[in-house]
Amino acid sequence: MAKKFLTSREENYSQWYNEIVAQAGLAEGSPVRGCMVIKPYGFAIWEKMQQQLDKMFKETGHENAYFPLLIPKSFLSKEADHVEGFAKECAVVTHYRLKNDPNGRGVIVDPDAKLEEELIIRPTSETIIWSTYKNWIQSYRDLPILCNQWANVMRWEMRTRMFLRTAEFLWQEGHTAHATREEALAESEQMVNIYAKFAQDWMAVPVIMGAKSDSERFAGALETYSIEAMMQDGKALQAGTSHFLGQNFAKAFDVKFATKEGTEEFVWATSWGVSTRLMGALIMAHSDDKGLVLPPKLAPIQVAIVPIFKGEEQLAAISEKINPIVEKLRAMGISVKFDDRDNQKPGFKFADYEMKGVPVRLAIGARDLEAGTIEVARRDTLTKETMSMENIEEYIANLLEEIQVNIFKKAETFRNNNIRKVDSYDEFKELVKTTPGFFLCHWDGTVETELKIKEETKATIRCIPFDSPEEEGKCMVTGKPSKKRVLISLAY
Amino acid sequence: MAKKFLTSREENYSQWYNEIVAQAGLAEGSPVRGCMVIKPYGFAIWEKMQQQLDKMFKETGHENAYFPLLIPKSFLSKEADHVEGFAKECAVVTHYRLKNDPNGRGVIVDPDAKLEEELIIRPTSETIIWSTYKNWIQSYRDLPILCNQWANVMRWEMRTRMFLRTAEFLWQEGHTAHATREEALAESEQMVNIYAKFAQDWMAVPVIMGAKSDSERFAGALETYSIEAMMQDGKALQAGTSHFLGQNFAKAFDVKFATKEGTEEFVWATSWGVSTRLMGALIMAHSDDKGLVLPPKLAPIQVAIVPIFKGEEQLAAISEKINPIVEKLRAMGISVKFDDRDNQKPGFKFADYEMKGVPVRLAIGARDLEAGTIEVARRDTLTKETMSMENIEEYIANLLEEIQVNIFKKAETFRNNNIRKVDSYDEFKELVKTTPGFFLCHWDGTVETELKIKEETKATIRCIPFDSPEEEGKCMVTGKPSKKRVLISLAY
Repeated sequence: MAKKFLTSREENYSQWYNEIVAQAGLAEGSPVRGCMVIKPYGFAIWEKMQQQLDKMFKETGHENAYFPLLIPKSFLSKEADHVEGFAKECAVVTHYRLKNDPNGRGVIVDPDAKLEEELIIRPTSETIIWSTYKNWIQSYRDLPILCNQWANVMRWEMRTRMFLRTAEFLWQEGHTAHATREEALAESEQMVNIYAKFAQDWMAVPVIMGAKSDSERFAGALETYSIEAMMQDGKALQAGTSHFLGQNFAKAFDVKFATKEGTEEFVWATSWGVSTRLMGALIMAHSDDKGLVLPPKLAPIQVAIVPIFKGEEQLAAISEKINPIVEKLRAMGISVKFDDRDNQKPGFKFADYEMKGVPVRLAIGARDLEAGTIEVARRDTLTKETMSMENIEEYIANLLEEIQVNIFKKAETFRNNNIRKVDSYDEFKELVKTTPGFFLCHWDGTVETELKIKEETKATIRCIPFDSPEEEGKCMVTGKPSKKRVLISLAY
Repeated sequence: MAKKFLTSREENYSQWYNEIVAQAGLAEGSPVRGCMVIKPYGFAIWEKMQQQLDKMFKETGHENAYFPLLIPKSFLSKEADHVEGFAKECAVVTHYRLKNDPNGRGVIVDPDAKLEEELIIRPTSETIIWSTYKNWIQSYRDLPILCNQWANVMRWEMRTRMFLRTAEFLWQEGHTAHATREEALAESEQMVNIYAKFAQDWMAVPVIMGAKSDSERFAGALETYSIEAMMQDGKALQAGTSHFLGQNFAKAFDVKFATKEGTEEFVWATSWGVSTRLMGALIMAHSDDKGLVLPPKLAPIQVAIVPIFKGEEQLAAISEKINPIVEKLRAMGISVKFDDRDNQKPGFKFADYEMKGVPVRLAIGARDLEAGTIEVARRDTLTKETMSMENIEEYIANLLEEIQVNIFKKAETFRNNNIRKVDSYDEFKELVKTTPGFFLCHWDGTVETELKIKEETKATIRCIPFDSPEEEGKCMVTGKPSKKRVLISLAY
């Protein structure tokens, strides 16, 4: 049931987020530490994301496959950087059987059923996939391999938050194999571009694409590209990454191919992924103090219709008028819910659809029937108007498109208003505290300076934006020369 | 690459199956015992299954959700029968961290990171889901809950076979909660009917629906309904199950609801699932000694077009003729692959598409161009005919429908020819050995007799068919009275 008021963003942004997740019915905690239950309404949004992403992957020649959940412990050690990044906090399977407790208290682990080698629940699948690709690749004719998998993965995070950081999460991970460095690089660039397009056109979230600094790169990658989105508290959220892995995994798993010219070479690799974290980005980018605000393209219910009636006769009269509208809207591919429940009042329904972020809500009562009108309410602007019922379907179809654009523009304006070029480190330190946002600053390119900024301000270099122009400058911390501004921000 | 000949079904059915799985590119083993890699072509078929099943679930009011992969060990013990059935062979997570081996040999399990309570990788999710439903259900207004999840599950099977029995497999599990016994029973019946419809209309596999005997029931269920399909070796394959769980899980997790009348009652439950095992059924039901045979509705490629050409000029001329046909077929919703690779010969391509079970293959050469003809080959009958290219699209659309029907009819005829009514146990024992198939026999309804049959013949009571007519009879083993014939068979 919808509570009347959420904690406001201003009062406590983090609390506001948690309340929306709970009250919009998106997700909840579980008896297993750090693992969440994704509730039907939350999952319906994730499914819409999946469908569109899957379509975009297939349009660019990728195929889905499925690789094992469990990875032999020794595989993680095969790529030196990778083991540092991923072997630390992960779920370890050591036994394969339970037995009845001889003391009669439930079940206990059977000590006789110990695995020879422990298995890890995948934190990511490069190792198991490259051990498989070794069998698939002999010659240049076997390349490229363009595989994706939709899967659950697990990282034993100490501090978890719904969608943003959970021990188990759902994601897709693309793993591609190529004959040349150029082709692999082009693939990793293509995929970060697809992520950006998806974020902007579907999630209505503007993003900045760029390359990660050395220290923020994926464990085992030569380049990591990411899309960075700004949340309403000014913090950055990394919403998707695409990695150019060079020949690191091919070398670790000895995956070579015979070239056209008859030589033998290691295969070039990429991997790329987005996860249920996107749900967190979607919620935090658009929602307001009344609840979730969903872009129409990802809304499980695009139009909710609430009849205002006393008794069955009035409802029947309203239904007679509404049913053809529902049918026409559905024929146009619009998802509609006609909420004729008689055990909840209209006011409750209005608040509930507001909380759930339904883009358009229609209301119709006895007086509207007489006048041939209907009330149209927009979730994004919270405005209402009374319209003629005639040709209302076309109006709504256009309105949904307008809302999609408006939500994006609003987020973009906010984002642009909160990007600042800063050249003084003192000013930067002050601004990070008082007016968080994205900062474009000169940096000398060293890990030391990066760490200093992080330690002193908690802000990190989010990326070196692709579209950052070449300009002569001086590192705001050390004064050493710099040729490009980088994006620095507090981050989720 | 396609090998020229498969082991024939007659020679070695089991070997034939394994070779098809490998050579059609459906799946392969992995470095993790009992876990498989589902390859892109195999996964594309599974995706088609998923899409259709998901549609059928949603049309009957179900929603998708996602529940945690890991289950606290103690949860399994809460339902007495359930723990007996599922707690035995399962993957147990005992630790949550690895660390560098002080001896420098990779990573070892960190003994300091031992979980207080071990976690089990879900073998099925009744327990974690009913512990969650406790929070979702207070009143009759919260019912029914009609949730499904698509997920991976794990059962530590000792003897595994691709798709049929693997340690990790993919499935969907529906878990519903109801206010009344009648509604829950109706739900479990509805779902086994949906599975039957899917098997017959989409997989082209005829099935027999029925109830499991006491000893074959799901651990924790009051009724288990299943669909049983006959493979080409006469054995039965259980292709889907739907369970009426009574109030067992509600009692185990204390899930009560306030009724309309103001009393408090335990909630009624069902669960139902199909898995990647369906892939095994699909392969074994239809395929022949040339490879896979796919029903058009589940074929990732419905039509493969092979140009027969020498040089680019001929290919260009063929493409010019073929491209409009490809476009028209695609506009009709038919998936087409125009295979214009120049590094493989037509003969290789023909064999490969046969192995992969592509329903229709078109071939076109220089002579066809002149004559305005095209060769149409059917995978199900292995027949070919030369047709005029004019209106070929419509012909193909009809042909695909005809193939779908024909494959079903062929499987149905085979199945019907191998169902036998047997009244003498001696005859039964002989027939099970010599001509495996389905046997309809009278049984006295006792576990003892069921076990005796199983021990002496390896055959099991597959189900008590819904459509088995009432008739007076005598148990073929004990001579005790029986009112219905049951379905007995060897089984996968």
